[in-house]
Amino acid sequence: MDMSEIRLFVEMPLAAGAEVALTEAQAHYLFGVMRQAVGAPVTLFNGRDGAWQAEVVRAAKRGGTLACREQTAPLRLPPDLWLIFAPIKKARTDFIVEKAAEMGAARILPVATRFTNSERIRQDRLQAHAVEAAEQCGGTFVPEVADLAPLDRLLADWPQDRRIMWCDETLLSARAGLGQAGPGPWAILIGPEGGFSEAEQARLRAMPQVTPVSLGPRILRADTAAVAALTLWQSVLGDWTT
Amino acid sequence: MDMSEIRLFVEMPLAAGAEVALTEAQAHYLFGVMRQAVGAPVTLFNGRDGAWQAEVVRAAKRGGTLACREQTAPLRLPPDLWLIFAPIKKARTDFIVEKAAEMGAARILPVATRFTNSERIRQDRLQAHAVEAAEQCGGTFVPEVADLAPLDRLLADWPQDRRIMWCDETLLSARAGLGQAGPGPWAILIGPEGGFSEAEQARLRAMPQVTPVSLGPRILRADTAAVAALTLWQSVLGDWTT
Repeated sequence: MDMSEIRLFVEMPLAAGAEVALTEAQAHYLFGVMRQAVGAPVTLFNGRDGAWQAEVVRAAKRGGTLACREQTAPLRLPPDLWLIFAPIKKARTDFIVEKAAEMGAARILPVATRFTNSERIRQDRLQAHAVEAAEQCGGTFVPEVADLAPLDRLLADWPQDRRIMWCDETLLSARAGLGQAGPGPWAILIGPEGGFSEAEQARLRAMPQVTPVSLGPRILRADTAAVAALTLWQSVLGDWTT
Repeated sequence: MDMSEIRLFVEMPLAAGAEVALTEAQAHYLFGVMRQAVGAPVTLFNGRDGAWQAEVVRAAKRGGTLACREQTAPLRLPPDLWLIFAPIKKARTDFIVEKAAEMGAARILPVATRFTNSERIRQDRLQAHAVEAAEQCGGTFVPEVADLAPLDRLLADWPQDRRIMWCDETLLSARAGLGQAGPGPWAILIGPEGGFSEAEQARLRAMPQVTPVSLGPRILRADTAAVAALTLWQSVLGDWTT
């Protein structure tokens, strides 16, 4: 990716000749902030049709139109990996979503646990962070950010075939055999500050889908743990070819 | 670590019976923000003598004194790993230093490269971030943050026996054999946005100490790359026992 290129996420289908209308915010960014005009090249993606070279054909204060020219990259899906985390302070929650999108999580699920500090999230704001991360980092896919759900309910309906890499801070020295667990659908589960309650720990330990994994001997903040866990998973089971 | 304990980094030697004077900022934090008083327990560490249980014996508006009781944890040094990075936007540079301290880097070296955006750093502010990370995360060691130095000069004086894990964004699919390279002193090198110049790349490729490593098929921001690289190194060569 050329770091100087302008990339925009849009909702509309992308195909040769397709015209795409800009939102007011996109027009402000493109024409106001980035000082682009008719004829300027922009890369578009919508999470389904890959990346497309497009060109500004109409520029106005509150809108504009781009015309799609040709596909420049196919859709690239991340591995089938979910990230489940307990929301923390606002800036660090934003950060976790940004990093999950960058690191190739396919779905992001905020959960309320017994010791979760934050009872509310702004799903729309978090989704916007995932979009921005994909725009900035050359992605063609944007992970869906789910609404906040209680961990208990999520685990009650947990799919039989999706494994859980549980980042268990009580495990101080052993990193269990992620490699032996094998590929297939997975989820990473990161706890809140203060960890999981006894009841939550017992429940997780009893689930056959769960593999506990240690993230080393130091205590990590939840946002650090998220990036570290995504790295471990991607490098052992994901698409970081060795 | 009990997450509710108050931990403070101090400069003074710690030993049974030692008295430790608080700075004005520490007194404000302890007595103003945290509402502690004479008799309150505080954990102290200085990066050399491990962690010590101490007790407030004098509390004033602009100062105070703690008395050391007993050592509660020995000094725990991280592996001999340096993190070299090119400063980026302020919040993300702060973040890299915080994460490097959490993840167990022994030394943090900001460098100016050909494409570095930021020409200046506030070494004292970055060092304070490293201290705060150790306070928050139960560490007993604080990595030194060096002053900004040109990458060229750093590489010209590079120690013969210290290997460099070079996170090379042009390597899209191969992750070279970190494991085969073996332990010993190492440094991780993360580039700026825009990557390394041709001349810098040629120089790095010619150094026998350098092992290029890929961080997967997606483009990562520098702060994400730092945490991902520290995770890879710690899990393959560091103290994350498998």
